[in-house]
Amino acid sequence: MGGDNPPELLFEAVLLAVEQHSPTHTFVLLATQQVVDILHLQYMDRLAVKTTARIEFHIVDDVITMADDPLSAVRVKKSASVNVGMRMLKKHHLDAFISSGNTGALIAAATLLLPMLPGISRPALLATLPTKKKPVAIIDIGGNLYCKAINLVQFAQMAAVYQRCREGVNCPKIGLLNIGVESRKGTKELRQAYQMLQDLSLRKEVQDGCAMKFIGNIEAREIFDGRVDVLVTDGFTGNILLKTSEGAAAFVVDQFEAAVKNASPKILVNGEKKDLLKKFDYSEYPGAIVCGVDGLVIKCHGNATPCSLYHSIMGAIGLAERGLVRKIKASLIS
Amino acid sequence: MGGDNPPELLFEAVLLAVEQHSPTHTFVLLATQQVVDILHLQYMDRLAVKTTARIEFHIVDDVITMADDPLSAVRVKKSASVNVGMRMLKKHHLDAFISSGNTGALIAAATLLLPMLPGISRPALLATLPTKKKPVAIIDIGGNLYCKAINLVQFAQMAAVYQRCREGVNCPKIGLLNIGVESRKGTKELRQAYQMLQDLSLRKEVQDGCAMKFIGNIEAREIFDGRVDVLVTDGFTGNILLKTSEGAAAFVVDQFEAAVKNASPKILVNGEKKDLLKKFDYSEYPGAIVCGVDGLVIKCHGNATPCSLYHSIMGAIGLAERGLVRKIKASLIS
Repeated sequence: MGGDNPPELLFEAVLLAVEQHSPTHTFVLLATQQVVDILHLQYMDRLAVKTTARIEFHIVDDVITMADDPLSAVRVKKSASVNVGMRMLKKHHLDAFISSGNTGALIAAATLLLPMLPGISRPALLATLPTKKKPVAIIDIGGNLYCKAINLVQFAQMAAVYQRCREGVNCPKIGLLNIGVESRKGTKELRQAYQMLQDLSLRKEVQDGCAMKFIGNIEAREIFDGRVDVLVTDGFTGNILLKTSEGAAAFVVDQFEAAVKNASPKILVNGEKKDLLKKFDYSEYPGAIVCGVDGLVIKCHGNATPCSLYHSIMGAIGLAERGLVRKIKASLIS
Repeated sequence: MGGDNPPELLFEAVLLAVEQHSPTHTFVLLATQQVVDILHLQYMDRLAVKTTARIEFHIVDDVITMADDPLSAVRVKKSASVNVGMRMLKKHHLDAFISSGNTGALIAAATLLLPMLPGISRPALLATLPTKKKPVAIIDIGGNLYCKAINLVQFAQMAAVYQRCREGVNCPKIGLLNIGVESRKGTKELRQAYQMLQDLSLRKEVQDGCAMKFIGNIEAREIFDGRVDVLVTDGFTGNILLKTSEGAAAFVVDQFEAAVKNASPKILVNGEKKDLLKKFDYSEYPGAIVCGVDGLVIKCHGNATPCSLYHSIMGAIGLAERGLVRKIKASLIS
């Protein structure tokens, strides 16, 4: 509930996941009675077959909209899907929770209702961007406007675990986003984080299951070469970086397409354009992860389509099965 | 002196400017005796013709390198080209000063040797990025890591004058870079700057020669649509934004080119690629402007080519003739 697209459209993604994948997962849909009624009517045939056993409907009474103030909405609308879902996650009735609603409300609900992982004071958002090699995990992309050095170090640890789980990188390379590569560059917090990450890296480099390698400061233009697996930054800067990439990519594709449209078969250009731009849409692969809470919480784009929600569901299943949250917790303690 | 490319290569840009443009400008070259000797030898024929009268060589003894610590280098190497040039600018022996050397040293020299404009405590760097409409002026892109609300407001005023001078925009539209459009978004400084820019906009909207319109917060992905003429941000965030655009653009062109290379004439793709990527290189159009000092100071990319330096020279001539600095000063006072 609460995304830009109607729940009855997004439901297509759930049916796709149920129909195409392993029969061991159960999908819990948190929606208002009205939406559930529409779903039953609209998808009568497909719900009638054997798949129904694996889809549970759970009625919620409140809906948090994009216009709502996140914190007060979470406090007042106790029966909104985001609150109900977080409580179910806490009780381990769910293994993962996915939302395409209000991001602030999702983070607020996760913070208020789930236990924090050891040493974490507030969750951070992790998303990936494409590079010439493997995707890079960027943390934080919007959870925290201000970050102390210790926060940045914890972000690095959490994202390193993510890259091990998601991309199978044994010893993820960590970079600190800065305006120059020298260790004296940037703000006081960044200079301090540089030293702390260097120390942590030495300590963890050979540690079984927690290995990571800090390669120093990295400039924004270099991340697309795939030089690092994890890019650490505060939530303000990370958000700007992500949206700049998205905007610049769309602009360039637009300009480039105009330049070559007479020379190349249009159908190819259109196909490639779509594929390329999708990679810049953080909701796709597999969505943004709310890191630092004891529960797997994934944020889809507000205007998630059935296709992007489907990717999120598959991503969530993979991360849950590989024990992302348990491994992050272990890494923060060790 | 002090750029990545040798001065004898860059000199080509000066000859091009002299040979192709109006005969009323004089070019003062600040270089070591050794470089001047090489130039005379290498360009004997072209220097022999009537153009020589318009090229003056001024011998300097020190060179600041990219590896030097900016502030101490400026203080110790009194006879480096950046220091000599700033003193000449102060005495009005020059109308504009262009450098492709150490950016920190350039800003330090400008700050130490030139008078500040009214109310400005430290200069900001302005650069442009391409959009679907006119280029957008981004200020600050690296002068100041931390900015107070009042700094951001002054940046807006200075960049508005730039867009009037450079692009002929009568009433430039100003946007404040933020992670959401609502006025309550972002840091304390940004929320305060939002209010101050709104007030200033109301005051200036109809003011002759100083008109500007604040359109509110703007997200990074929207700047490429050309919604604003000026994007205001702190130097850290602006630097990240600029370098992210550059990296994302290069990455997308690379991917897109690979996708269409079999279908379109390669020569077209190469030509378009070069043109498109050049637009993302802030040194080209016409370089970054050091705003806030009483003198026209322009920073080229460290690896400026004769072609990009030529654009900077032409840009500098245009801005000097249109009285950019005088107009910025007037706008800050009124």
